[in-house]
Amino acid sequence: MRPVSDLLTERTRSSRSSVIREILALTEAGGVLSLAGGMPSPDSFPVGELAEAAARTISGRPAQTLQYARTDGATPLRELLAAEASVRRRRDASPDQIVVTTGSQQALDLIARAFLDPGDLVAIESPGYLGAIQAFGAQDPSWLPIPVDADGLDTDALEAELAAGKRPKLVYTATDFQNPSGAVLSPARRRHLGELADRYGFLVVEDDPYGWIRFGEPIHDPIAATTERCISLGTTSKTLAPGLRIGWLVAPVEVAAALSRLKQAVDLNSSALAQYLTLELLGRPEWSHARAVELSEFYRPRAERLRSAMLAAAPDLEIPPARGGLFLWATAPGVDTTALLPRAVANGVAFVPESAFRTDDVSGECFRVSFATLTPDELEEAAARLGTTLAAS
Amino acid sequence: MRPVSDLLTERTRSSRSSVIREILALTEAGGVLSLAGGMPSPDSFPVGELAEAAARTISGRPAQTLQYARTDGATPLRELLAAEASVRRRRDASPDQIVVTTGSQQALDLIARAFLDPGDLVAIESPGYLGAIQAFGAQDPSWLPIPVDADGLDTDALEAELAAGKRPKLVYTATDFQNPSGAVLSPARRRHLGELADRYGFLVVEDDPYGWIRFGEPIHDPIAATTERCISLGTTSKTLAPGLRIGWLVAPVEVAAALSRLKQAVDLNSSALAQYLTLELLGRPEWSHARAVELSEFYRPRAERLRSAMLAAAPDLEIPPARGGLFLWATAPGVDTTALLPRAVANGVAFVPESAFRTDDVSGECFRVSFATLTPDELEEAAARLGTTLAAS
Repeated sequence: MRPVSDLLTERTRSSRSSVIREILALTEAGGVLSLAGGMPSPDSFPVGELAEAAARTISGRPAQTLQYARTDGATPLRELLAAEASVRRRRDASPDQIVVTTGSQQALDLIARAFLDPGDLVAIESPGYLGAIQAFGAQDPSWLPIPVDADGLDTDALEAELAAGKRPKLVYTATDFQNPSGAVLSPARRRHLGELADRYGFLVVEDDPYGWIRFGEPIHDPIAATTERCISLGTTSKTLAPGLRIGWLVAPVEVAAALSRLKQAVDLNSSALAQYLTLELLGRPEWSHARAVELSEFYRPRAERLRSAMLAAAPDLEIPPARGGLFLWATAPGVDTTALLPRAVANGVAFVPESAFRTDDVSGECFRVSFATLTPDELEEAAARLGTTLAAS
Repeated sequence: MRPVSDLLTERTRSSRSSVIREILALTEAGGVLSLAGGMPSPDSFPVGELAEAAARTISGRPAQTLQYARTDGATPLRELLAAEASVRRRRDASPDQIVVTTGSQQALDLIARAFLDPGDLVAIESPGYLGAIQAFGAQDPSWLPIPVDADGLDTDALEAELAAGKRPKLVYTATDFQNPSGAVLSPARRRHLGELADRYGFLVVEDDPYGWIRFGEPIHDPIAATTERCISLGTTSKTLAPGLRIGWLVAPVEVAAALSRLKQAVDLNSSALAQYLTLELLGRPEWSHARAVELSEFYRPRAERLRSAMLAAAPDLEIPPARGGLFLWATAPGVDTTALLPRAVANGVAFVPESAFRTDDVSGECFRVSFATLTPDELEEAAARLGTTLAAS
């Protein structure tokens, strides 16, 4: 009798872990200072507020916090998120346009399953967010990689592809402090992308997990302010804490309804407890404002410290200052950073090479480092190890 | 320009809400005593323990509870669940065999996506769990409905189908107090099903959400004690509270690894906070034991009260006493219960007709009522309204 794992579908059996993931898994063994992760610092979590809010909301409204929730999310949370979206978009959003999700990763998965048939064309930033590549990739799409520069997704390059006859079904972009490049999509490009969506009929998926962690960067209108052909994603993972696992999407009503029907079969609903905890904290505007300031003040010195230490240890590196978010995007001219990674791990430091963020897996000179997870002293040491690795390469 | 919802896939657009779901949605408007829901009673939630545990675990280990978790689940929780599975199965289960999921619904969805190609044959109890029909149904399988009697899934009927050449890829069964019929799969049939899985090479998915709510029924070995070709599902939704949204699966190591890889793209991980809350409570064996007793004592009188009231109001009904779980399964001889539902709703009471639990949507004489959600006085009144409806039909 063949083992039961032989019953897995061909696509499931062929989806092995990536080489990069295998290498990074080695870093968990200890002794390696990892700049590879994307996790926020536990020192930044609002521990006291969450502990107090959890005890109070469980005791105060157990029939809501401990029960099943509506599939599209608890009504007061959807009302709050709709009110915020209305302000950001400069036009009314209704609670019927909101679906609360199990992190924004689930929003990506639901969108992928609801919109993509195998072979459908997906335009994605290159380099682009790995979680989006994984979620959309699970539907076997064709990829249309669009380059990113300091102003974010190059909408002129996208327009050239459209003019040449390419017809993506959806375009994914992370607008603020894009993962991994740190780019911010400029206001002119946001408008341009909205115009292209209206002209060519594709869907824009705009993601914004890092919007609260800004190092002086002004807040721009979202793409959804320029077009209705847009789904906007949000998450509490970088504003409150990843452990809640609460994200959401704002979509046209019919789309939200379809995504909610799909979610019914996928996980019924996201944790009601986590939803009411989110409501407790995000429902206090003055607290949210102070929290955003606090997060920016927490991370900005770390970003500057890591950048300075890396440039001191490896002067050939090119590293634009972080404008927000959790990452620096470094260029090592002439270096294959995929090949560099195992040597770096051998020297006790890890990063994520450019190839991980590309749908074509092609290697490149760039790599992503996070200033969020390690302590400031560890950041210094990690930078020194990077310098040693690069000097020997 | 066509609306963006036109970009949804054909299968997404065609998945409309069912007629029954539409009718039941009307019952939320108020004035209707619904016996249709499957939600446990908020009066049964361990509110104090959860409030206290939440505050303590958030304050005590914020770097775990508020952070991202491993995709397959927090290690101490997987260790606990593996130890429990080892006892239940009478052979060692390792933490590598566990994947913590966003409710057991997500386990069903992951299994469906990992194992089923369109057209693959799925054997499922008829009547069977609606959530399983939805999760497996999303992969466009072919269905092999297997009848259920008081001893659960009729394994002789399954064997006859196998002998006739049918080759299901997986067989789904809820072993204890099956939703909707309340049946308990007998020990002999558990062994028989395990033998058939080994002989014919299919996968068994055994679900057991109601196992802690027993009205004197002995505990039987799970199917996984008889075959390794089995994935066992668990959930906290009926033991602790649905608001945590924590379930899990126990699978062969290679299968667990494949399901975890898939989950990475689906939602990264389930809420760490909810996982550590689960660990806090399930990690105390004496508390768990007392909780199971408490749940059974809470629900058993309600089950008996609803049954008595229904039989008094409608003597033609056939209703076996509940042996556990949250539901009674009633037969109204000669009555089309799908057609009865709108008349019942007009009379201020709701139930779920047999057709909702069948993959062929065929109507029948049976219907499911829950004794969990309404108060005892409401149960009496609901039974009276059911009697009025049946008398007029």
